[in-house]
Amino acid sequence: MPRFKLILEYDGTPFVGWQRQTNGLAVQEVVESAIFALSGETVTIRGAGRTDAGVHASGQVAHVDLARAWRTDVLRDALNAHMKPRPVAVLSAEQVSETFDARFSAVRRHYIYRLRNRRAPLTLTAGREWLIKRKLDAHAMQAGAALLLGMHDFSTFRDSECQAESPIRTLEQLDVVRDGETIVIRAAARSFLHRQVRSMVGSLEHVGSGRWTPQDLRDALDAKDRARCGMVAPADGLYLVGVDYEGEFGAPAL
Amino acid sequence: MPRFKLILEYDGTPFVGWQRQTNGLAVQEVVESAIFALSGETVTIRGAGRTDAGVHASGQVAHVDLARAWRTDVLRDALNAHMKPRPVAVLSAEQVSETFDARFSAVRRHYIYRLRNRRAPLTLTAGREWLIKRKLDAHAMQAGAALLLGMHDFSTFRDSECQAESPIRTLEQLDVVRDGETIVIRAAARSFLHRQVRSMVGSLEHVGSGRWTPQDLRDALDAKDRARCGMVAPADGLYLVGVDYEGEFGAPAL
Repeated sequence: MPRFKLILEYDGTPFVGWQRQTNGLAVQEVVESAIFALSGETVTIRGAGRTDAGVHASGQVAHVDLARAWRTDVLRDALNAHMKPRPVAVLSAEQVSETFDARFSAVRRHYIYRLRNRRAPLTLTAGREWLIKRKLDAHAMQAGAALLLGMHDFSTFRDSECQAESPIRTLEQLDVVRDGETIVIRAAARSFLHRQVRSMVGSLEHVGSGRWTPQDLRDALDAKDRARCGMVAPADGLYLVGVDYEGEFGAPAL
Repeated sequence: MPRFKLILEYDGTPFVGWQRQTNGLAVQEVVESAIFALSGETVTIRGAGRTDAGVHASGQVAHVDLARAWRTDVLRDALNAHMKPRPVAVLSAEQVSETFDARFSAVRRHYIYRLRNRRAPLTLTAGREWLIKRKLDAHAMQAGAALLLGMHDFSTFRDSECQAESPIRTLEQLDVVRDGETIVIRAAARSFLHRQVRSMVGSLEHVGSGRWTPQDLRDALDAKDRARCGMVAPADGLYLVGVDYEGEFGAPAL
């Protein structure tokens, strides 16, 4: 059966997350329902990142096996038509080798986290950013972020419900850049623990507001103790922006 | 009475526009109601740009006279608290001279219009951009835009309900820039006719899609005939991003 790689964008707000749950609608189900509506096939698709409830994506990747060798532009447009009015879109569809697995072939996941640092409430970007009213020092945050790079036991920044066998991960990128009142944090790794990015961002907020020094952040990492995590940043500001596979490079922009 | 200049951001989606109407809630009323809730004063505020229904702002300017000489940060925060949960925010408040008039002292209005040029429907930016599925040539659009600069009779790009005495305006900036699948159009002028930006953008779409040449756009301008307008772009993509006053310069970013 032909295998297709789908690149997906979604507004995570109305969903319980990527993965099927008993308590509401998952992004995965929206795509699977569109496939059923199109071809009558009952499939289970696999995504590269199991984004949590409320987390957005501009570059989620999934794969699916279908009976027909669809023209990829027809497949993309037909799935988009069937997913309306849900805020999920297939940006591209591509036929790939049967050895391609959206989750297990991935060599790098890219996330961005958007903070808005101002007094006024969010209007145009409500649900799309984390509003922080206290003045944040992005340089201090960047100094702290640099201390988390590399291979570590990230138990401090791991949700208690994380099902990964090992808390060891290699953080390849964690950059903090301010542009006016917006602060964008970029994170990349082969894989992340459950809520790792939001746990790191919430702790970086402590550094930015001056409650912690950059070294306090590093000490929290070294403690390997979930109780030392600063806080977990809300889902609103987090976006899965891209996934790299063997032979592909570069971090897609949001 | 002390006069205050307010810089406002809003999501135009739920409103009938800036100005009070009989058919729904206006942005102006949200701010005026917050002032009443704060101080008991019944005021009428004046905005620099009378944005239409659905049009957004990240830099609308209004002025209001109040009985008390409020500390400006207190005024900003209190108004924001009273406007919840409406998507309107006071970004800053400043006490100004009684000669300042948000509308009549303005020397330049800056708008941007956001287009998304792709096949897939909008998700994260639904209601914030105009989706165009046909491939647009942004270079041709820029060439057409350049032919509209300067002082002209803009009757072609003027809504039939426009109440301005003269159709003559001086277009100081009309730039078209593509960044990936996003096309941003920046427009600046001392003042615009009713729906002038959306009329110009809708006609630029005709140039981008190849239906019109840049010269066809110029011919439409020279015809001074509303019937020659290409189309009126939807409100979703339009933002009032800033207003300049005597002694101030620069176009604020969105």
